[in-house]
Amino acid sequence: MNRKQLVDQIFSKQSFLCVGLDTDIKKVPECLLNNEDPIFDFNKAIIDATAQYCVAYKPNLAFYECMGVKGMISFERTIKYLKENYPDHFIIADAKRGDIGNTSSMYARTFFEEYDIDSLTVAPYMGEDSVTPFLNYEGKWVILLALTSNKGSHDFQLTADQDGERLFEKVIRKSQAWGDEQNMMYVVGATQGSMFQDIRKVAPNHFLLVPGVGAQGGSLQEVCKYGIIKDCGLLVNSSRGIIYASSGSDFAEAAAIKAEALQKEMAIELNKIK
Amino acid sequence: MNRKQLVDQIFSKQSFLCVGLDTDIKKVPECLLNNEDPIFDFNKAIIDATAQYCVAYKPNLAFYECMGVKGMISFERTIKYLKENYPDHFIIADAKRGDIGNTSSMYARTFFEEYDIDSLTVAPYMGEDSVTPFLNYEGKWVILLALTSNKGSHDFQLTADQDGERLFEKVIRKSQAWGDEQNMMYVVGATQGSMFQDIRKVAPNHFLLVPGVGAQGGSLQEVCKYGIIKDCGLLVNSSRGIIYASSGSDFAEAAAIKAEALQKEMAIELNKIK
Repeated sequence: MNRKQLVDQIFSKQSFLCVGLDTDIKKVPECLLNNEDPIFDFNKAIIDATAQYCVAYKPNLAFYECMGVKGMISFERTIKYLKENYPDHFIIADAKRGDIGNTSSMYARTFFEEYDIDSLTVAPYMGEDSVTPFLNYEGKWVILLALTSNKGSHDFQLTADQDGERLFEKVIRKSQAWGDEQNMMYVVGATQGSMFQDIRKVAPNHFLLVPGVGAQGGSLQEVCKYGIIKDCGLLVNSSRGIIYASSGSDFAEAAAIKAEALQKEMAIELNKIK
Repeated sequence: MNRKQLVDQIFSKQSFLCVGLDTDIKKVPECLLNNEDPIFDFNKAIIDATAQYCVAYKPNLAFYECMGVKGMISFERTIKYLKENYPDHFIIADAKRGDIGNTSSMYARTFFEEYDIDSLTVAPYMGEDSVTPFLNYEGKWVILLALTSNKGSHDFQLTADQDGERLFEKVIRKSQAWGDEQNMMYVVGATQGSMFQDIRKVAPNHFLLVPGVGAQGGSLQEVCKYGIIKDCGLLVNSSRGIIYASSGSDFAEAAAIKAEALQKEMAIELNKIK
């Protein structure tokens, strides 16, 4: 999916919501546990209930890998279901991969050829040749970690070099020589709301993937205040806040209510940049 | 496997060789391609041929994931085969994972509980809470990326902060508050031979996992000159140089010859620290 198609989806649906499919078997409602593939059935119900309120889905690979081969089958079925039934939704594989060039090429083959997913989160620590193999695919995106939403983000990402440039700024600046606004986004945690001002100084036009709204405590309004741009430029993710809104058999309806509430807030923000 | 057991293996086998099982279906010899699981059969033959010359095996997950569910089955079979037939070999899952605490816990569950692997490579960019979930397992190890073997390692890892501390040094120094010499190693590329002096200043006693000998051009002698310590403290990895030594039906014998040659060089180095 290219940028224009993504932006069209955002404005037509009045939403820049991404639903995180971090499906933990320990949190799947009891009513599904006797099914053959409870993870997939949970995802399918969540997707059907929330698709009208969001433009993207982001399964985090950890939650599937931890189930071994069975989990990867659930992951593949989820991707296939999305592509067949909701082809206009942007799919993000949240895998935070990154390895030497030779190996990153293998990961690119997996996610962009084998699964035909729109985008992949990538860790920047290993530098240019760990990122560029993902940039050779038309219509596919790298979403590079810049400033993450967790406490540990302070350990290294905020370290300033001798010119005063912080590591996350250096990652954003340097990586702009590898990809552009049509094939690269950055992860910026919502828990760092006021930092969006600094991010927009180095990446004025890039799309940002924003985790941390909801369970992790970030504020949508603050993110938009500093981060939104003319064509929106934001995908705001909520995982636990939506998919575990209820632990009962009404989990899908509860998820829809949470997603709709976020979509309504987003419509207000989009209205401001009209 | 704890440190003492690993060191005992190294001195009894006179080897600190790790064989990288980066098994690419495109490079598996033709004679195996009609088998039901050529990846596993290739690994099995390589393992049987090299086990006496090495103390560790390191499958890189990318090479298995790129085959989808089928690849993960080959991975699981390889781990099972190793554990049943070579229980004294240290197993490293080269996965370079790292995510927010909640998610890193899921990865820890996968690799340390589901697969019962000895160690996992972890990327440090997301800081403390992305690493510590892996440290709660007795006898299991985190192998944290510090200074990698690729060209892109220069992009961020060498950046000095305002006190002159470079990022890889900061990663090593800070992470010593999270784990210790009994449960944490560092990845340091062999292509950066002379840097081992600097590494040993911040990590005098930690084990280092050293990729980049062979195909990537690093020198074993230079690594040992600056990096070896009293109980060895090194695991030197070779992947392509061993497993693809021949593309014919003699691939396993050719791999054994390469592994034995490296083991002999290692015995000489171990002799120096007696």
